[in-house]
Amino acid sequence: MTLEDVLAANQAFYDAHEARDLEAMGELWERSTRVVCVHPGWPILRSWETVVDSWRRIFSGPGRTQFILTNVEVAIEGRTAWVTLDENLVDTGAMGAAGAVAATNIFTDTGAGWKLVAHHGSPIAPR
Amino acid sequence: MTLEDVLAANQAFYDAHEARDLEAMGELWERSTRVVCVHPGWPILRSWETVVDSWRRIFSGPGRTQFILTNVEVAIEGRTAWVTLDENLVDTGAMGAAGAVAATNIFTDTGAGWKLVAHHGSPIAPR
Repeated sequence: MTLEDVLAANQAFYDAHEARDLEAMGELWERSTRVVCVHPGWPILRSWETVVDSWRRIFSGPGRTQFILTNVEVAIEGRTAWVTLDENLVDTGAMGAAGAVAATNIFTDTGAGWKLVAHHGSPIAPR
Repeated sequence: MTLEDVLAANQAFYDAHEARDLEAMGELWERSTRVVCVHPGWPILRSWETVVDSWRRIFSGPGRTQFILTNVEVAIEGRTAWVTLDENLVDTGAMGAAGAVAATNIFTDTGAGWKLVAHHGSPIAPR
């Protein structure tokens, strides 16, 4: 089932982050120059090499991050899917973000399974 | 040309914002429940009605926003495209954001031309 495959790829992304598993994280992304990642508060990072390097730095930094994912919605259009959700951070030491992060994750399936091509996370300002 | 059509749709989004043209803004979006919008610092807004209502409130608020768009990259996969760019805000009174915003805009062409299905903007923290 396509929807389940997309959700599994999305969950694997957060599992790799929680486990600080750089190899797993690297495998999740499309290996291309069109890959895009925006960590909360960061500028746009482009290309697989740059994105993986950012995860290397995040995983080697202080603090651990755990996520409770809520408000998860998936849209699929052909070979492209986007997942939008709230990342509720249990420990925010590594990311410099407080509370909840709104995230958009774009996946494509161009033959090797659903791969991340874009992750955009932004802190939700407290009300 | 598909690429030019996507870029034109993307530019029309910023033109509608600058002009505070609610009707033009409403026409740019897919009229669906899967529509998603994250203004800088805001929680996720879902569905066309909710998103248009947020623009109504932004356009009726104080301040005007002008954008200088830089670092614009387009990716197209079938009927889906995503544009990532930096919104350099000249006047930030209306959005409560300072300086530059990293944006991800997802468009689909399901028969009525390229329509926005997701906009995600996040403030880039000053260094």
